[in-house]
Amino acid sequence: MLTVEEAAHRVAATAQPLAPEPVSLNEAAGRTLHETLRADRPFPPFNRVTMDGIALAFAALAAGQTTFVIERTQLAGQPPQPLRSPSTAAVEIMTGAALPPGADTVVRYEDLHISPGPDGQRHATVLVPPPAAGHNVHPVGSDCAVGTPLLLPGTCLGAPEMAVVATVGAHTVQVTRRARVAVVSTGDELVPVENTPLPHQIRRSNALMLAVAVRATGAAVSTFHFPDDPAALRIGLPALLTDYDLLLLSGGVSKGKADFLPTALREAGAEEIFHEVSQRPGKPLWFGRKPGGAVVFGLPGNPVSTFLTYHRYAAPWLRTVQAPLAVTPPPPTFAALAEDVRFKPALTYFLLVRLESGETDGILRAHPVFPNSSGDMTSLLPAHGFMELPLERDFFREGEVWKVWRF
Amino acid sequence: MLTVEEAAHRVAATAQPLAPEPVSLNEAAGRTLHETLRADRPFPPFNRVTMDGIALAFAALAAGQTTFVIERTQLAGQPPQPLRSPSTAAVEIMTGAALPPGADTVVRYEDLHISPGPDGQRHATVLVPPPAAGHNVHPVGSDCAVGTPLLLPGTCLGAPEMAVVATVGAHTVQVTRRARVAVVSTGDELVPVENTPLPHQIRRSNALMLAVAVRATGAAVSTFHFPDDPAALRIGLPALLTDYDLLLLSGGVSKGKADFLPTALREAGAEEIFHEVSQRPGKPLWFGRKPGGAVVFGLPGNPVSTFLTYHRYAAPWLRTVQAPLAVTPPPPTFAALAEDVRFKPALTYFLLVRLESGETDGILRAHPVFPNSSGDMTSLLPAHGFMELPLERDFFREGEVWKVWRF
Repeated sequence: MLTVEEAAHRVAATAQPLAPEPVSLNEAAGRTLHETLRADRPFPPFNRVTMDGIALAFAALAAGQTTFVIERTQLAGQPPQPLRSPSTAAVEIMTGAALPPGADTVVRYEDLHISPGPDGQRHATVLVPPPAAGHNVHPVGSDCAVGTPLLLPGTCLGAPEMAVVATVGAHTVQVTRRARVAVVSTGDELVPVENTPLPHQIRRSNALMLAVAVRATGAAVSTFHFPDDPAALRIGLPALLTDYDLLLLSGGVSKGKADFLPTALREAGAEEIFHEVSQRPGKPLWFGRKPGGAVVFGLPGNPVSTFLTYHRYAAPWLRTVQAPLAVTPPPPTFAALAEDVRFKPALTYFLLVRLESGETDGILRAHPVFPNSSGDMTSLLPAHGFMELPLERDFFREGEVWKVWRF
Repeated sequence: MLTVEEAAHRVAATAQPLAPEPVSLNEAAGRTLHETLRADRPFPPFNRVTMDGIALAFAALAAGQTTFVIERTQLAGQPPQPLRSPSTAAVEIMTGAALPPGADTVVRYEDLHISPGPDGQRHATVLVPPPAAGHNVHPVGSDCAVGTPLLLPGTCLGAPEMAVVATVGAHTVQVTRRARVAVVSTGDELVPVENTPLPHQIRRSNALMLAVAVRATGAAVSTFHFPDDPAALRIGLPALLTDYDLLLLSGGVSKGKADFLPTALREAGAEEIFHEVSQRPGKPLWFGRKPGGAVVFGLPGNPVSTFLTYHRYAAPWLRTVQAPLAVTPPPPTFAALAEDVRFKPALTYFLLVRLESGETDGILRAHPVFPNSSGDMTSLLPAHGFMELPLERDFFREGEVWKVWRF
């Protein structure tokens, strides 16, 4: 049976980058950039005033001048006019304004006294002289020069990234297209949510759970349901394998009489890459692909198994195809076990955990959440993810640090 | 000047819970539940078979029977029929099926040998006897009884929660309504993204950054721009203060000549609750509310200041009003400083940090990200959040643990 590492490796080998598509600025948030965005101007684009006060020539101060006639007031957004009399005058100026030519320094209000002069004009007396020319000025180009790459291909466009996109005026951007994902539930025991199930039936919940999780990655999701009928699968599967990038099937992959899925998938042209992984939960995981078509995960049908195998294998696949050029993949999380854990079977153990950040030591602690059964989806609710415990060991001591896959 | 703690306390005091509204199952993901959802049936709803194999009466095994005639095969989703001859026969059965009356135990295929018998029927010989009655059966109601509260008011409906909503058949659920948020930029130096700015102008980016961040909380966002003109504000502000739950203004709150906002807000009926907080960045933060109307944040206009003050004050406010009944607020993050940090001013220091999870010790380490200036939005890009360092101290040693606000 395949190990988790080998299975993950085979999954990763099928993750082909998706093509780019142009979207408008308003549609770009949450998408993955597929081009390099560069500074279209130096930043800041002008000598930017960083304090409200007066702009003056430092040389005048150095020459002994302490009181300056205020020539005029300049707000942010107003074109800068030259300082007419740099040796004796100043411009009252606001944060965000462009420094007037002839001035090189700003003295903030707190370091000034402003009073009406005998000439009817306002006079500013510098009480606390600035330490050097350039004080309270953010020089043009000091953040970056024209042409500096600001956002690289593979960047996920969150809020600060969108601010950069707007700043450089990219009203259309190339982003990686969304993955098209079909979420398929199977099983005659499953009835629609609106129905009242018969005693031996349950409502369909795995498909919705997967759809919500997949949509959070930015992918486009459609959901389908097939009865336990080889004929229905034979009719329905081929189009799904052609029209979608990814099929997520839940249930139908163990070795029972009604688990036709692996056979039906093979008949529809999907090649099996592996079936079964040495892990708990989720041992019956099926994985394959149709050459030139969809990649297929047959996820085990118990909700806890479905969700954990989705996060261990399918979610990273989606991240890779949708952010194929990512410069900085999301950093992994490691946590310390909050109690001893024993697990005898020679399987990699996906242990549900609740994470807690240590207020005094900064240690992330993983508190095990033990499901009543892998059919008990409520055990997922308090968990923040699962810890991956290797199959070579059967005892894990409190304090040991292992990788955690966050939901 | 107000401390960060006191400012946050005054903000929290204005966070009134929003009303509930009904939404369909397909619209509920990501929303906050505003009712209690209970188990509508016991779970599992029947004695659920957990392995593929045969269902039999344990008493027959105990009486010495080791080979059983297979009466029939029962798939998941098929109504269970009683086991006709419990002392000598069994039902071949699949995972997820309801246990047939008369059977109490399942022996999995791996522990059986099945062969055709002389009577033309299939016979199963038990090779590995089960340890006790009930083996490989998940008994009815063993996860929870009818009426058990499964999801409490205040629960955020993520993927596993949505599986529970579907399972109990809640095709319409009461959720907290979305907050209505107006994001307002001000300043004549700001031009639309589509425009080519004049040398002394820059493009509007803060409003987009805030809109993206606010939308991620589930709120409904509209954006507005006002020039630095008291008349425009006088005309535009009153309707915003009436029609929205929250106004997020960026810029216009420091003490410069064109910072009319505090005055215009007061004239429009918004009462100032505080102006200025002893923090860097973000000292000029303005906060108020119109009685019976919107709560207003006047966020400082430098992008780093805007983003950090949004996350420190406005994001928690949004979380509180939209998830007013939350049973488990998101757990805080604490991290250890990865290097010494010195900060002289008597201000609470919001230090941008990149977080790294320790592979050997599970310690979350905060690596400082020092902006070139608070106008340099690219310094936000590598940061995962900011560490809040108290104003009483001016030196913080590597390894000290402080709270981190994640973006």
